[in-house]
Amino acid sequence: MIVIESTSDMRQWSERQRRGRQRIVLVPTMGFLHEGHLCLMREARLRGDWVVASIFVNPAQFGPGEDFATYPRDFERDRCLLEAENVDVLFHPSLEQIYPAGAQTFVEVEKLSLPLCGSARPGHFRGVATVVAKLFNIVRPHLAIFGEKDYQQLQVIRRMVRDLSMDVEIIGHPIVRESDGLAMSSRNAYLTSAERQAALCLSRALCKAERSVRRGAVTAAAIVDRVRAELNNEPLAAVEYVKLCDVETLDEVDEVREPALLALAVRIGKARLIDNRVLKH
Amino acid sequence: MIVIESTSDMRQWSERQRRGRQRIVLVPTMGFLHEGHLCLMREARLRGDWVVASIFVNPAQFGPGEDFATYPRDFERDRCLLEAENVDVLFHPSLEQIYPAGAQTFVEVEKLSLPLCGSARPGHFRGVATVVAKLFNIVRPHLAIFGEKDYQQLQVIRRMVRDLSMDVEIIGHPIVRESDGLAMSSRNAYLTSAERQAALCLSRALCKAERSVRRGAVTAAAIVDRVRAELNNEPLAAVEYVKLCDVETLDEVDEVREPALLALAVRIGKARLIDNRVLKH
Repeated sequence: MIVIESTSDMRQWSERQRRGRQRIVLVPTMGFLHEGHLCLMREARLRGDWVVASIFVNPAQFGPGEDFATYPRDFERDRCLLEAENVDVLFHPSLEQIYPAGAQTFVEVEKLSLPLCGSARPGHFRGVATVVAKLFNIVRPHLAIFGEKDYQQLQVIRRMVRDLSMDVEIIGHPIVRESDGLAMSSRNAYLTSAERQAALCLSRALCKAERSVRRGAVTAAAIVDRVRAELNNEPLAAVEYVKLCDVETLDEVDEVREPALLALAVRIGKARLIDNRVLKH
Repeated sequence: MIVIESTSDMRQWSERQRRGRQRIVLVPTMGFLHEGHLCLMREARLRGDWVVASIFVNPAQFGPGEDFATYPRDFERDRCLLEAENVDVLFHPSLEQIYPAGAQTFVEVEKLSLPLCGSARPGHFRGVATVVAKLFNIVRPHLAIFGEKDYQQLQVIRRMVRDLSMDVEIIGHPIVRESDGLAMSSRNAYLTSAERQAALCLSRALCKAERSVRRGAVTAAAIVDRVRAELNNEPLAAVEYVKLCDVETLDEVDEVREPALLALAVRIGKARLIDNRVLKH
């Protein structure tokens, strides 16, 4: 595995592969890798000739008071994990490479950035769209893979790619869960063992909602109530939102007629956890 | 000359040339071409293997009440002029190709978009940056040429390219003037013959300012006063701004120590005209 730190080296490497008609697959990450990330790397391996993983903790997607400074980092461990997955290139740029002095350009996907996590984290998706645009311009992948746990992020990126005519195919990978159902996340590292147990309420609530729908519930009100009741049962959980949305536009919907996204965000201890499921009637 | 209307055809053409290591030069325009544009085409010819001109009147860079609907258009004439300049490809996308249904992504270069024309035309440079980002993603040029008459636009684009790590070299081409000094502009077509005469006050004022500096004037106050006096002499001219700025950041400066940009915008009849000059002490 080659480790590349400079944008110009990364660009040259990519230009060479593209000229040889080799397909490049990018998996952008913020590091502190878990099995969910590694599944993305395996999917990438199946879909292209070269797999590039990027590790960059992106300050622009953290708000003031959020966990940028304390976000978990372990580069050596990440490097070994990627090596073991036969990743070809680890792109690991410095802050200055991505945000040169005087940087002031942002990419904004307006409507999709507003609801759900966007309303609690203003500027978050602007930071995400901006850094992903930069990574795409530097790495020039044919294809990029993102996890569906960050469903809104995935939709924001798909829309950006379409709107700005970027020549990249975007693939969403299903949520990878621990054996007890908890969606994998680098932020799970913030949980104490009691909180780790409490965090199961997210996936449990989604399962209960799915069961309600299977039994005939269709209104958002009924489904959201069911989920809130389940989450409120857990004393360590503070619900931030529970929403039923259109799978494309993320507009709130009243009923599950078409497949609809049930999305939730919950604070447990120091961690803000999100999870989601697409419900079908 | 090939005329290409679809983004996918354009992309394919470019991908083919890039694979053959051919250098592509793009000259983006809004059409209604004049000698200024044609000079950019000739410069493009010298700098690359293939010259692509684009014609797209970009609604996103016009404000409400501005002249999007009446902006002069003459595609057949433009096509002949470009053919005569040996342009290789004319990219002429439809509105739907550039702004697909549901488009909501914008590129914003924050600080550089605020002063000068940005303060009179909020959203203008956001529209410019967004469409240029799209054009770059579709045409994938190695190099793009812009006129220095739109000095702020040029700086906005340079900054965007640097900030988003776009792999395009940006070239500014000196202002092309009529023999009597008027900077060439498609909007000169709005002028009656009396207004056309009155419009000479812009270039005349810039010349006077330059002469003042040569004679020792250094303060912005003195230079701007000199320019305003000249412009106010012309009864048909309504000054929008006269500013002395840093050539890179466009921050206002008090003195011409380093080279400084003298920029002005003046309304004459239905036309809003701009002109500028870099002054050196």
